[in-house]
Amino acid sequence: MMRELIEEVFVETFSDIQLEDAATLDIPAGKLAFSTDTFVVHPLFFPGGDIGHLAVCGTVNDVATAGASPLYLSVGFILEEGFPLEDLKTILTSMAQCAREAGVKIVTGDTKVVDRGAADGIFINTTGVGLIREGVQLSAENCRVGDKILLSGTLGDHGITIVSQREGIGFGTTLKTDAAPLNELVKAVLDAAPETRVFRDPTRGGLASALNEIADASKVSMLVIEDEVPFDQQVQGACEMLGYDVFQVANEGKMVAIVPADQAQVALDAMKGAPYGADAAIIGEVIEGPPGRVSLRNAFGATRIMDTLVGEQLPRIC
Amino acid sequence: MMRELIEEVFVETFSDIQLEDAATLDIPAGKLAFSTDTFVVHPLFFPGGDIGHLAVCGTVNDVATAGASPLYLSVGFILEEGFPLEDLKTILTSMAQCAREAGVKIVTGDTKVVDRGAADGIFINTTGVGLIREGVQLSAENCRVGDKILLSGTLGDHGITIVSQREGIGFGTTLKTDAAPLNELVKAVLDAAPETRVFRDPTRGGLASALNEIADASKVSMLVIEDEVPFDQQVQGACEMLGYDVFQVANEGKMVAIVPADQAQVALDAMKGAPYGADAAIIGEVIEGPPGRVSLRNAFGATRIMDTLVGEQLPRIC
Repeated sequence: MMRELIEEVFVETFSDIQLEDAATLDIPAGKLAFSTDTFVVHPLFFPGGDIGHLAVCGTVNDVATAGASPLYLSVGFILEEGFPLEDLKTILTSMAQCAREAGVKIVTGDTKVVDRGAADGIFINTTGVGLIREGVQLSAENCRVGDKILLSGTLGDHGITIVSQREGIGFGTTLKTDAAPLNELVKAVLDAAPETRVFRDPTRGGLASALNEIADASKVSMLVIEDEVPFDQQVQGACEMLGYDVFQVANEGKMVAIVPADQAQVALDAMKGAPYGADAAIIGEVIEGPPGRVSLRNAFGATRIMDTLVGEQLPRIC
Repeated sequence: MMRELIEEVFVETFSDIQLEDAATLDIPAGKLAFSTDTFVVHPLFFPGGDIGHLAVCGTVNDVATAGASPLYLSVGFILEEGFPLEDLKTILTSMAQCAREAGVKIVTGDTKVVDRGAADGIFINTTGVGLIREGVQLSAENCRVGDKILLSGTLGDHGITIVSQREGIGFGTTLKTDAAPLNELVKAVLDAAPETRVFRDPTRGGLASALNEIADASKVSMLVIEDEVPFDQQVQGACEMLGYDVFQVANEGKMVAIVPADQAQVALDAMKGAPYGADAAIIGEVIEGPPGRVSLRNAFGATRIMDTLVGEQLPRIC
């Protein structure tokens, strides 16, 4: 009976769903981006979002980082028997709304129900297909000395919101997740700065891991200027209290772009004018130095290494 | 540390994996089939297969039923903390082997680890993209009176194998899953019988649900001749013992095709000559009658309704 209810809710909520075993997509010739992500975030509902909204944003952003316009999503649910139908409806509605905002169609889905205790409420997989814009040649190996590092907004909001909820310290703050679909922002940057080297959404492992990966792949060093990095004061405060390095905390609505110096300003203007890009900043640059070294310079001129996160800082952050 | 081990095993096992956030696919213009399925089968290992093999077969077959050649798969894992690495390796290896057999590339993946007790060992999502062959117009609404119903082999093997393992009655039998990739078989049928109306893989709900769905959509009746349906004797015996209707039991390596009468023999020959089609048979036909009625005629000439499975017969069958 739960299956039937779910299918009803599914079809009601997702107007683009095709009920055959496979959906049929019309695609122009070219290069597609294809990305999958499974969401196990705990708690399921948190300030500014929920697992459904996050599941759409996450895959939309992974497809967008490849320089693609996300077109279609599949959704796969694992539900624990007895999961409240009202919660499911809320989650599906927020998926549908986010998909509409991002201009992506949820066209096919699957639901499995497992016995009580065999899963924790609900897990969601989303897989996305997008069309890579012609002529775009993004790669983490592309960066050159002199390139600028752009960040689309404040760091750490998602991770700190989730952990605050778990630790019960969110009360009295206005912390909320930054989860957001960034495909319009990526498109705006590519329109303005077609020679952008690479995009990265700094999710698990945060900005530090994203930059280290790129610096490794391009065999360059990078320098980030701490004073240029946008932060929310509450996030910084919570990081200090909890002992987290904000550069390693997960974001779900931020984009890093590495751009040739002569296109940095137009790329920044494009970010600032795009949805979710108002706080964008040029936070550093690619410099001469040992391959893969990322450094952070603070307000006093002292420099430290910005390390990749080793292990998992926060389980079930997304 | 588990994450790192997993990524190592991942990259070792899946030679086509692309490590960026999104994989890049080269696709000719046309229609794509896009399908997702999540696998929560219990137990994880069973005679003839395991959850990994099943996860590749299931999505390959869903894409193939759309008349498409499966090209690319994504894989999404949810692992319970402490899941044995040796078991994971076995599962990944069997996924890689099955993908190789089916000629499909596993190009992108994601792994989430959840705390002990928050999942039951391992769950796997696979999502597939395939190219629909030009000119193919398959639809469950296409069937006409006189069309023949083809089935690619014996019924019920997967479902009965799984339930036998759970009930501990598999011992001493040679029961094994029929899970298999059927894309070559579908291709062979389409080569031989290009006007095939529709394919359906009779998974959850079995043959009965597959035929009822098609009869509903085409607004026709169907008649199945019990004596023409291939069965394994052990499966039949187990169904009697357990009180299951074999027509409602899940299959994971069988294909139903509805074909115009004048192409039925060539379609059957094509099935028999294709991998996993040796036991194929023409098991019935589309007849005049009330829309959506599927009947079964037994050896004594008596006819009964073949009902859609209501509810879930066997939880976690796939």
